[in-house]
Amino acid sequence: MIQSMSRGFEDFPVGTRLVSHSCAITTKDIIDFARRFDPQGFHLDAKSAEKTLFGGLTASGWHTAAVSMRLFIDAMNVSGGIVGLGVDELKWPNAVRPGDELRVETEILAARRSKSRPGYGIIRLYNITKNQRGEVVQSFMANAMLPARGS
Amino acid sequence: MIQSMSRGFEDFPVGTRLVSHSCAITTKDIIDFARRFDPQGFHLDAKSAEKTLFGGLTASGWHTAAVSMRLFIDAMNVSGGIVGLGVDELKWPNAVRPGDELRVETEILAARRSKSRPGYGIIRLYNITKNQRGEVVQSFMANAMLPARGS
Repeated sequence: MIQSMSRGFEDFPVGTRLVSHSCAITTKDIIDFARRFDPQGFHLDAKSAEKTLFGGLTASGWHTAAVSMRLFIDAMNVSGGIVGLGVDELKWPNAVRPGDELRVETEILAARRSKSRPGYGIIRLYNITKNQRGEVVQSFMANAMLPARGS
Repeated sequence: MIQSMSRGFEDFPVGTRLVSHSCAITTKDIIDFARRFDPQGFHLDAKSAEKTLFGGLTASGWHTAAVSMRLFIDAMNVSGGIVGLGVDELKWPNAVRPGDELRVETEILAARRSKSRPGYGIIRLYNITKNQRGEVVQSFMANAMLPARGS
């Protein structure tokens, strides 16, 4: 079975650490996302952003979250799918700016079989997104469900 | 001054409740977002989604979050900008499916002047996103900073 060759719950025991590939964020990426989902001056226009708290164009926190999800999904490489169950302590301690290159570091904090859904496991993870200087631009903890390989 | 005519911190005392306009989510919206940010079967393709836990195409939770941000920003209508400081207890208790119409309900839980940034206030808010049947598809609490009008 092809399914059984994919990574699953058993591949992410407590203490597992993953580092994603990196993703560059362009001015166009920032503005495109902001126009649709977070149309505020500091995310939309470099000139008007200069006069704000940020002193320049910055990505929406939800844009950072979305890019981080992509990096996380790619690093996990679970073809059966990962279902987010909830997120805690989502923070954006530093702004993401045009040209930044983001990378996600994941640590598995807990892992158990699902009681209600046989064949699935639930992991608790800590995800940190860093820029090219190693500064943290996002962090959160989350619970997620994913299929086990062996079932 | 035009700035002083915009809404600001003073307009959101504790207990304020806002309801956003609604936003319809199409199949194309779901797939476009997923291709870019959350490429998993249940977000990418209606046919393969039928065989998953969800039993059909569903929006990425981060897509729901992004749409909810847009609805929130529009409902707040603060031209000076709202800066998210952190999010707690982000949950997606029901799936968002093609054709769903989302609406955000916001309640202001706390409001105080910023000590470190004169002219700004910090609010704590509870945001719930509901679909057209009144089912909760997302909820979270957050702290956010916004400019005061009067300063």
